[in-house]
Amino acid sequence: MAASLTFESPTPMRLSQFHLHTSKETPAEAEIASHKLMLKAGMIRKLAAGLYTWSPLGLRVLRKVERAVREEMNAAGAIEVLMPAVQPKELWEETGRWEKFGGQLLKIKDRKDAWYCYGPTHEEVITDFARNELSSYKQLPVNFYQIQTKFRDEIRPRFGVMRAREFLMKDSYSFHVSEEDLGLEYKNMYDTYGRIFTRLGLKFRAVAADSGAIGGAVSHEFQVLADSGEDAIFFSDSSDYAANVELAEAISPGPRAAASEAMRRIDTPHQKTCEDVAALMGITLDRTVKSVALMGADAEGNPQFVLALVRGDHVVNEVKLGKLAGLAAYRLATEAEIAEHLGSEPGFLGPVAPKKAIRVIADRSVAAMADFVVGANEKGYHLAGVNWGRDLPEPDEVADIRNVVEGDPSPDGKGTLQIARGIEVGHVFQLGNKYAQALKLTVLDSNGKATTPVMGCYGIGVSRIVAAAIEQNFDENGIVWPEPMAPWQAVVCVINPKNDAAVAEAAQSLYRDLNAAGVETALDDRGLRPGAMFADMELIGIPHRVVVSERGLAAGTFEYRHRQASESENLDRAGVFAKFGK
Amino acid sequence: MAASLTFESPTPMRLSQFHLHTSKETPAEAEIASHKLMLKAGMIRKLAAGLYTWSPLGLRVLRKVERAVREEMNAAGAIEVLMPAVQPKELWEETGRWEKFGGQLLKIKDRKDAWYCYGPTHEEVITDFARNELSSYKQLPVNFYQIQTKFRDEIRPRFGVMRAREFLMKDSYSFHVSEEDLGLEYKNMYDTYGRIFTRLGLKFRAVAADSGAIGGAVSHEFQVLADSGEDAIFFSDSSDYAANVELAEAISPGPRAAASEAMRRIDTPHQKTCEDVAALMGITLDRTVKSVALMGADAEGNPQFVLALVRGDHVVNEVKLGKLAGLAAYRLATEAEIAEHLGSEPGFLGPVAPKKAIRVIADRSVAAMADFVVGANEKGYHLAGVNWGRDLPEPDEVADIRNVVEGDPSPDGKGTLQIARGIEVGHVFQLGNKYAQALKLTVLDSNGKATTPVMGCYGIGVSRIVAAAIEQNFDENGIVWPEPMAPWQAVVCVINPKNDAAVAEAAQSLYRDLNAAGVETALDDRGLRPGAMFADMELIGIPHRVVVSERGLAAGTFEYRHRQASESENLDRAGVFAKFGK
Repeated sequence: MAASLTFESPTPMRLSQFHLHTSKETPAEAEIASHKLMLKAGMIRKLAAGLYTWSPLGLRVLRKVERAVREEMNAAGAIEVLMPAVQPKELWEETGRWEKFGGQLLKIKDRKDAWYCYGPTHEEVITDFARNELSSYKQLPVNFYQIQTKFRDEIRPRFGVMRAREFLMKDSYSFHVSEEDLGLEYKNMYDTYGRIFTRLGLKFRAVAADSGAIGGAVSHEFQVLADSGEDAIFFSDSSDYAANVELAEAISPGPRAAASEAMRRIDTPHQKTCEDVAALMGITLDRTVKSVALMGADAEGNPQFVLALVRGDHVVNEVKLGKLAGLAAYRLATEAEIAEHLGSEPGFLGPVAPKKAIRVIADRSVAAMADFVVGANEKGYHLAGVNWGRDLPEPDEVADIRNVVEGDPSPDGKGTLQIARGIEVGHVFQLGNKYAQALKLTVLDSNGKATTPVMGCYGIGVSRIVAAAIEQNFDENGIVWPEPMAPWQAVVCVINPKNDAAVAEAAQSLYRDLNAAGVETALDDRGLRPGAMFADMELIGIPHRVVVSERGLAAGTFEYRHRQASESENLDRAGVFAKFGK
Repeated sequence: MAASLTFESPTPMRLSQFHLHTSKETPAEAEIASHKLMLKAGMIRKLAAGLYTWSPLGLRVLRKVERAVREEMNAAGAIEVLMPAVQPKELWEETGRWEKFGGQLLKIKDRKDAWYCYGPTHEEVITDFARNELSSYKQLPVNFYQIQTKFRDEIRPRFGVMRAREFLMKDSYSFHVSEEDLGLEYKNMYDTYGRIFTRLGLKFRAVAADSGAIGGAVSHEFQVLADSGEDAIFFSDSSDYAANVELAEAISPGPRAAASEAMRRIDTPHQKTCEDVAALMGITLDRTVKSVALMGADAEGNPQFVLALVRGDHVVNEVKLGKLAGLAAYRLATEAEIAEHLGSEPGFLGPVAPKKAIRVIADRSVAAMADFVVGANEKGYHLAGVNWGRDLPEPDEVADIRNVVEGDPSPDGKGTLQIARGIEVGHVFQLGNKYAQALKLTVLDSNGKATTPVMGCYGIGVSRIVAAAIEQNFDENGIVWPEPMAPWQAVVCVINPKNDAAVAEAAQSLYRDLNAAGVETALDDRGLRPGAMFADMELIGIPHRVVVSERGLAAGTFEYRHRQASESENLDRAGVFAKFGK
């Protein structure tokens, strides 16, 4: 059974000589569509928990993503390097992350009992590289990137390559003499990421994000939109504003209405929540105010009792709250603290006539309310018709302390906010000088003085994009690739190639000519029955399908069908080429 | 100091915007030329023992090698996959290599206390992949390859990327239903490797190798020739025959001459070596015969005393000896065993008139000798004028049991053998069914019967090639790249670009037009002094240099110099393009 493995074209596109291995069974271990479809299509195969081999089919797609990322990064002026995966403990101790990084850091002891880790990220290594390579402001700005394998020892690896332990990432790190210059490169990378995801044919949003533990001031996440996404994104229906819930700003609803009711005490013997009180009173929830009792710190650092007020239909946003003065390390107040300051028990709290001095922080929408309902600081009672300035002092502070909700006005003044779900595939950060300082990276500035550069870092989950694209693009028959990510743009399917030389020849010729015209085309010459062949091609998501059959040949036509079309069309040769603008 | 990082061309080729970082100092830690030059040129930077970051300059070269390997592998019909670097212990236990592989295997324990290794090779993983993906002979032959990062925990990592711990490798594995089919693919890979190294512009030899521990029957090493190479290679001066010393065949020197002397006893009171006896007698060393006393086994497995005879100027080859019947586990005979069988002590041994029955194995050249000198099996005496068939029986066995030497006839009958030193950069093996059997990989053959495929495996040290190419190509000024591996084919050097707009403009235009004409060209617009700039370009080994200066511009010429030329030439624009056949 000796057979030649040599192909006439550099990339194997004749499927009889390509290793395609689809499966009809739906794998039991897969929870989400992309994981199921990648296994069924034979794009990946599990080696162990969170470890996957990319098959020839899967790798074709992965490489397309990799190439788009590389070309756009190069065009943006970033310079490619390649750092080791294995990193010495000593470097991670300089930044304190050897201990702090936690269980995701895969620690390795070599034969000489020296400790290393399999890099989950490369801030330490690139900063060490920079402190050896960079000495003058003249070498800045510079943006080093790599496309490289990373490892994060997830407690529960799942969803296939979406949350694998070993994965392919593009990470880049820029160095600057000033925050202003960092800002320019940040914008450059932000725009570049947009170009990358657009080029790949993905629907995405760049979302203002809280940079959290990584320590920078400004950051954006790039989210591929998909119903199965883990993250909620708010975006404007009329502009490109988008932010995740931690950062999406809730703006003031406008001026406060005049008071029209008198303040009065309401019997609420069993009503401890805004919902219950509104129901009892027959009013809408947005007429009520929720009071959240907290302990923060005053300007001197002494404990301070705080009442945070949001509308009954809103939810307090802890990240926004934590950014206010004295609330960086706030906690919920205890019942004793509540009793001491308000003289009441939870369920009936409010800002009117507290027992002791407290700090009142009103959400912007609460500050704009008139005739509202709050707890009376007395068990079994609420107050209605309450008005600022008349029944209680103006709030000590008015701030945005709530989650936005769908329908809120967009903070950029254009349109209203909608909600979508997304999968994070990219992240850009302004890191500041945290790593440069820890690793003692300095360069001489234009005055010959040593200065610590500021850094940006920019990541893209290359392998994750493949899964995210499927989450966004599939139907009951399989994957529906955006054309730039498809393993092949088109496939020529041959009916009965072994028994019909004329059909086989016509298919070969069409396949060759399409490729010559720049249409990346595969030839399905495996000799499968039409049903099985078409099912495979739909499963693996090839955008354009052209069928060559005896009957068609007799009529001088090919059966063409787009992956998303419900019907086939019979086209002559020119008609097929016209589908690709050729 | 804000500056745009955006380039007009996709790959940054203006050196003012590329990160080039050469050094004048010769790094103390580097022992060999390639390591020194890669550090001085700033191609790599050490992170830790055996771990290197590839700088932008180094990565350009690495990617050229990677691309050549990928394109030729694709053209040869191999199919690219990507396997995880991290591999589970369980698979390695199935082949027994978890214990057997030794200290080079970097073992890793994850957060759940499960054991893994950082793969030094992928036989286990690909065979596991195959046992899941392959079920029928119809899917064979198939050759899967990957270009991927590997780790070997060398006891003493050294020579930079030549013997690094983390390195880039192309490994491929083919599966076949028959040895015959494996042979075809082996030949295909052998030819492909030749195309790869030829395309890279390297002088190399494919060397028949002893496949040693990996267990296959046939293997070849691909050696880049370099004086600093660790391995000795014998090759024909008139054909492409090449083999390492274990395998290079020493052929028979032709028919035996007729006896012309009588056998006589010579007094050799203090002469215990062939050298000493030859000197005493005033004859050349090739008239003497060395007798090596061994213990092997006879056909029944009983201990057997063996005398192995090689010419006085030759050296016994232990690998060749070990392949003879009964000598798979031979050892040197003890003095007691020698006394028992020959009745003498070492220094005076010979095949004439042993005390007991012994097995005499004569090297081919010894079998062709007449009138030779051997020990007399008597302390203080040798025998001269000894002749086969007359003074002692014909040898029990005539075989090739010596190392070849320079000047030996090539075993293919063409020319004589020369010696060279080489650096191993590739290896092809016929593995047989060792891994398939251990991992229980079977496919159904054409009769529907389960059969164990045979495998080939084929490796190329991608990162090592970069260092090997330098070992082969450097001079006192730096690297002398073969053109296909150079970071750029050409560089346009601008003298004083900041103070002379016309010069800067002419250089830019030349640089653009050369690139447009398909000559990969860098522009050195860093504004360095000419001496420093030229030294850099020689150090990093750019093949073609074109200098644009005010003086040249006035004369309408550019100063052109090839990296290996001793003089510059003044050429007009057309003359410069003509250097590239444009």
